[in-house]
Amino acid sequence: MSKEAASSEQKKTGKVYLVGAGPGDPKLLTLRAVEVLQEADVVAYDLLISPELLAKIPAHVQLLPVGRRHGMGPTSYQLHPEVLELARQGKTVVRLKSGDPLLYGRGGEEAETLLEAGIPFEFVPGITAAFGAASYAGIPLTHRGLTTQVLIDTGHDVEDDSEDEDAQPLANRTTVLYMAARRLQANLQQLIADGYSPDTPAALIESATTPRQLVYRGTVATLAKVVGEIAPDVPAILFVGRPVALNEKLQWFAPNSAT
Amino acid sequence: MSKEAASSEQKKTGKVYLVGAGPGDPKLLTLRAVEVLQEADVVAYDLLISPELLAKIPAHVQLLPVGRRHGMGPTSYQLHPEVLELARQGKTVVRLKSGDPLLYGRGGEEAETLLEAGIPFEFVPGITAAFGAASYAGIPLTHRGLTTQVLIDTGHDVEDDSEDEDAQPLANRTTVLYMAARRLQANLQQLIADGYSPDTPAALIESATTPRQLVYRGTVATLAKVVGEIAPDVPAILFVGRPVALNEKLQWFAPNSAT
Repeated sequence: MSKEAASSEQKKTGKVYLVGAGPGDPKLLTLRAVEVLQEADVVAYDLLISPELLAKIPAHVQLLPVGRRHGMGPTSYQLHPEVLELARQGKTVVRLKSGDPLLYGRGGEEAETLLEAGIPFEFVPGITAAFGAASYAGIPLTHRGLTTQVLIDTGHDVEDDSEDEDAQPLANRTTVLYMAARRLQANLQQLIADGYSPDTPAALIESATTPRQLVYRGTVATLAKVVGEIAPDVPAILFVGRPVALNEKLQWFAPNSAT
Repeated sequence: MSKEAASSEQKKTGKVYLVGAGPGDPKLLTLRAVEVLQEADVVAYDLLISPELLAKIPAHVQLLPVGRRHGMGPTSYQLHPEVLELARQGKTVVRLKSGDPLLYGRGGEEAETLLEAGIPFEFVPGITAAFGAASYAGIPLTHRGLTTQVLIDTGHDVEDDSEDEDAQPLANRTTVLYMAARRLQANLQQLIADGYSPDTPAALIESATTPRQLVYRGTVATLAKVVGEIAPDVPAILFVGRPVALNEKLQWFAPNSAT
C-alpha cells in the first residue's frame, strides 16, 4: 500500500466478518453472507471452500487464500496475520470459512484476537456440513421413533477421546463425526465401544451438497469395508444412527452413486 | 378450485419443498430457500416463523399457516392435509419450517408421506437455532481448550430422557437444548446429574437472531434463578458448556440486554 493510500484511510475503521460459507453448494450461502461479500474489500478464504462457491465472489473483491486444507492443527487456530493487518489498514475483510464459523471453524479464537486488537467483528452463521449432508442425502438428524438427540464430534483423534459412555445404549442418538474418514475403522470401533449396536445404520458422505457428493452406506460394522480407500483431502462426514437407513428412500439429490 | 382449472392442471406434477427458514433473521435464509419461495404457488408455514421472515415472502405467493406454535406433539408429525391436496393439484408448495427441516423439523416424516403419495420433494437446509444463537450471541459451539463436541437435545421431556451418562465428566462438551425454557430448572438439574459441574457456564437465549433477542447468563446452578418466569410461547434455547462464558466478550449483536 502506498503512503498516500495509508494516509487517506487512516481514520477508517476496519472490520472483520467471520462468515460461514456453508457446506459447498453456493446456493446454501445465506443472504447475510452474500451481503457482506458484496461489501468486502478482501475475502480471506479457507482452502476447503468449494470451487463452485469461490466462483460466486464478486469480481471486484480481492481474494486471499489462507489456512490449510484440513485446518484442525494447532497452527491454524491463529488469525492469519495478513487479515489482521488489512483490518488495521481500515479494510473490510470477510474471513470466509467452510460450514459455520463457530463449529470447528475457529471463529471464537479469531474473534478473541480481533477483540484484543480493537478491531470490530461480526459472526455470520453458515450451514454446517452435518445439516447440508442431512438435507442433500436425505438423512434426518432426528426422526420420530428413531432418534431425539444429535452428537456432533470429530473423528480425528480417536485415542484422545475423553468421553466414555460406558456402553450406554445409544439407539436414541444420531452421531455425526467430522473428519472421520482418515481413521474410519477406528472411529466406527469406538462408536461400538460407546454403546452403538454394530448393526446401526451408518453412512459416509463425501463432498456433501456439491456435484461430487457421494454416499457410502452400511452399518457401523460394515461401513469401513464398503468405503475402502478414499482420497485423504476429500471432505467427508460420518453419520451413525437409525435415521441413516432413511437415506435409501429419501435421497432426492444423487449426482453420483457409490452403492 | 373450479373444474376447468383442475382439468387444465391435471398433467402438471406438484412438488413440495421442505425448507428451513433459519432461526428468525430473514437475512439468514439461504439463496436456495429464496429461490424456491419465488417459485412457489403456496407457502405453508409454521407459526414459529418470525414476522420479519414472513414479511419477505413474495406478494404473489399464497400463504397457508399450518401447525402449532410448539409443534413437538404427536399430531404435528403429520403432513398438513391441505399441503398434500395442493401438491396433488399440481401446485408447487414450500413447507417453510423454523430452523432446519431435519432437526426437530419433522421433515423426514413429511417426506415419507410425500413419497407414499408419489409426490416429488426436496429438502433445503436452514440455519438451526443452535447455530443462529451461537453466532448472534457470540457463543462458540466448539472452542480450543474448552469443548470439542456438541450434543443437541430437547429439554421437553426430562423424565423420558433415556440417556444416562452415569456422571461422566462433560467438560469437553457443549450441550444445546431446544425447548428447554418451560422446565428449565429440571433440565439444569438433569445436566448436573449427567455429569456437568454446577459451575459450568450456561445461557438461555430468547428469540435468537431477531430484534427481540435476549441473553440470560449464569451457571448450571444459577441460571434458573436468573431467568425467572418467561413467556411460554417465546422460542428459547439453552446453552451449557465452558464456551458459553465467551458470550460476555464476544457478543457483538445486542438489541436487548437482560443481565
